[in-house]
Amino acid sequence: MRAEEKTKTKIVRISIVGFGHVGSGVAEVVMRKHDEILRKHGLDLQIVGIADLKGTIIDEAGLSGDEIVRFRAGRALKTEVDVDVDMSSLELIREIEHEVMVEATPTNVTNGEPGLTHIITALKSDRHVVTSNKGPLALEYRKLMELAERKGREIRFEATVGGAMPLISLIRENLAGNGIISIKGILNGTCNYILTRMTNENLPYEHVLREAQEIGIAETDPSKDVKGIDTAVKLVILANSVFGMDATYRDVKVRGITEITPDALKLAKDAGYAIKLIGDVDIDGQLEVTPRLVPVSDPLNVGGTLNVATIRTDLAGDITVIGKGAGSIEAASAILSDIIAIYS
Amino acid sequence: MRAEEKTKTKIVRISIVGFGHVGSGVAEVVMRKHDEILRKHGLDLQIVGIADLKGTIIDEAGLSGDEIVRFRAGRALKTEVDVDVDMSSLELIREIEHEVMVEATPTNVTNGEPGLTHIITALKSDRHVVTSNKGPLALEYRKLMELAERKGREIRFEATVGGAMPLISLIRENLAGNGIISIKGILNGTCNYILTRMTNENLPYEHVLREAQEIGIAETDPSKDVKGIDTAVKLVILANSVFGMDATYRDVKVRGITEITPDALKLAKDAGYAIKLIGDVDIDGQLEVTPRLVPVSDPLNVGGTLNVATIRTDLAGDITVIGKGAGSIEAASAILSDIIAIYS
Repeated sequence: MRAEEKTKTKIVRISIVGFGHVGSGVAEVVMRKHDEILRKHGLDLQIVGIADLKGTIIDEAGLSGDEIVRFRAGRALKTEVDVDVDMSSLELIREIEHEVMVEATPTNVTNGEPGLTHIITALKSDRHVVTSNKGPLALEYRKLMELAERKGREIRFEATVGGAMPLISLIRENLAGNGIISIKGILNGTCNYILTRMTNENLPYEHVLREAQEIGIAETDPSKDVKGIDTAVKLVILANSVFGMDATYRDVKVRGITEITPDALKLAKDAGYAIKLIGDVDIDGQLEVTPRLVPVSDPLNVGGTLNVATIRTDLAGDITVIGKGAGSIEAASAILSDIIAIYS
Repeated sequence: MRAEEKTKTKIVRISIVGFGHVGSGVAEVVMRKHDEILRKHGLDLQIVGIADLKGTIIDEAGLSGDEIVRFRAGRALKTEVDVDVDMSSLELIREIEHEVMVEATPTNVTNGEPGLTHIITALKSDRHVVTSNKGPLALEYRKLMELAERKGREIRFEATVGGAMPLISLIRENLAGNGIISIKGILNGTCNYILTRMTNENLPYEHVLREAQEIGIAETDPSKDVKGIDTAVKLVILANSVFGMDATYRDVKVRGITEITPDALKLAKDAGYAIKLIGDVDIDGQLEVTPRLVPVSDPLNVGGTLNVATIRTDLAGDITVIGKGAGSIEAASAILSDIIAIYS
């Protein structure tokens, strides 16, 4: 909205570390949206390096779509660009000049690696960090924020909670001035899908889980989702980032959905309720993941794989936001918005 | 999130022009939240002047809560501060040094006055503008934006659409990078209240309208709300600000709720639908306000006085946001967030 936003152009060089669904989604949307973002935000986004288990591809002038597609397909070993199968992700982060490192390796909630080292290295190398990786933030939130502050760099992580559903920056920016009393919601689309199907079709848990696994909504080992662990990790990130707590996974009371029966869902439905796996964090430091009765007319009662969160505030009242919690383009959308926000 | 945000303090002097529900709500929240905003955002918000039909009160060092309360009560003629019953709102805007003018006079969609002149005068005097007044934006959007750009000042107006429900800045900031395909929603809480009551209690329109008037949810002359005019004006603001159109009220196809019968609502309900007054704007320039069938399980199906909007995007999919559309503190919350956003 400021005049200068439209007139100045800034080159923003980006590295992507971790090139699975999310990382390649980021490359795709950065390519697809390049001209639009240049026009609207004055940012000339260039991907200068990608690192993955299969090696590293770099081009300080910006990789082309072709090069990225060939790398993705694992046939990048012979191209005209600087390809270095021996260059590690850390060397890419440290040695190639760029402004923003996108960390998109898988979440590891035991020790946060390799994401944690990637993020620390990037901040120490004066890069901003945008990540979809929950592990480092759930384990070392305060340490990472202090490092970012010391280096005058930003670390943004909208994609870690609720995928494309805006939540963290919504609270920080759009609800600035509001005190946040609590956040309560469905933060795991797999559990929501399973409970919705069980309710609508009157089917047992194991049956719906198998079905969800077949269509790719649940993983082969579904325990992180169905036991509430994924929801708990997201709650920890909200507790630390929104409420300024110093919480870890161990502070969350967690119960999953594995023991919910079709009978329980039917009883609830007849009484005007749905059963949903709700994550709940409040200003008093309560952190809980547990199946709860939600009135069918409540904004929290959304079906399918949707995510939802109700933010209770002291001025604006209750604000509810609903969106897709997963998907590679959806996560990439959140990462792209974070990159743009760094320069807004 | 940046280090410097917490360490630098900036004095932001504010004038409030129009001191009804919204304007006095702004004064209340600025006072109540002063210390918190100073701590969190490094902004020292000071109200240096208030203008209303009953006169103008100014204190370049910042008005106290007492002074504001006495002005509100109409007993401001004799206080120790500079009170000038002859100083006009335009003199306050032009002559008293301040950074942000909050325009909170009532909406006038015929010629936008007096808000339009207030806003133009403020921009010409190098003030940022934050407003809850729909008239000037619905009538002269482009002219105002061009003036703001020329002066290097911002004009923000989150409170004009959806009250406390974040929508305009949500799209601009949190969904930056996304192309917006359409916005569809319930943007008028009075109509939503009337239709919800008619459905739940099987009561005729006139009965529920009278009831709504008695409890202050509908105005004595309810035509702006029930005929869809208020929704249409909000749609015009969205069309211009989000989709870059140059629309006016005359471009909107409008039908209100006055002809909806309890029978129609019951038929819809039995078929699994609710009837809601939906405003709809899309990238092709369609602007329409009309009662529509909404599946009961759709996120748009919210009851009571709530507002809701579903934003269809090209990357993030559908994002829905639900919140309170009206209320003096809720509107003030949106204005406060806008003021903070100018300095973020």
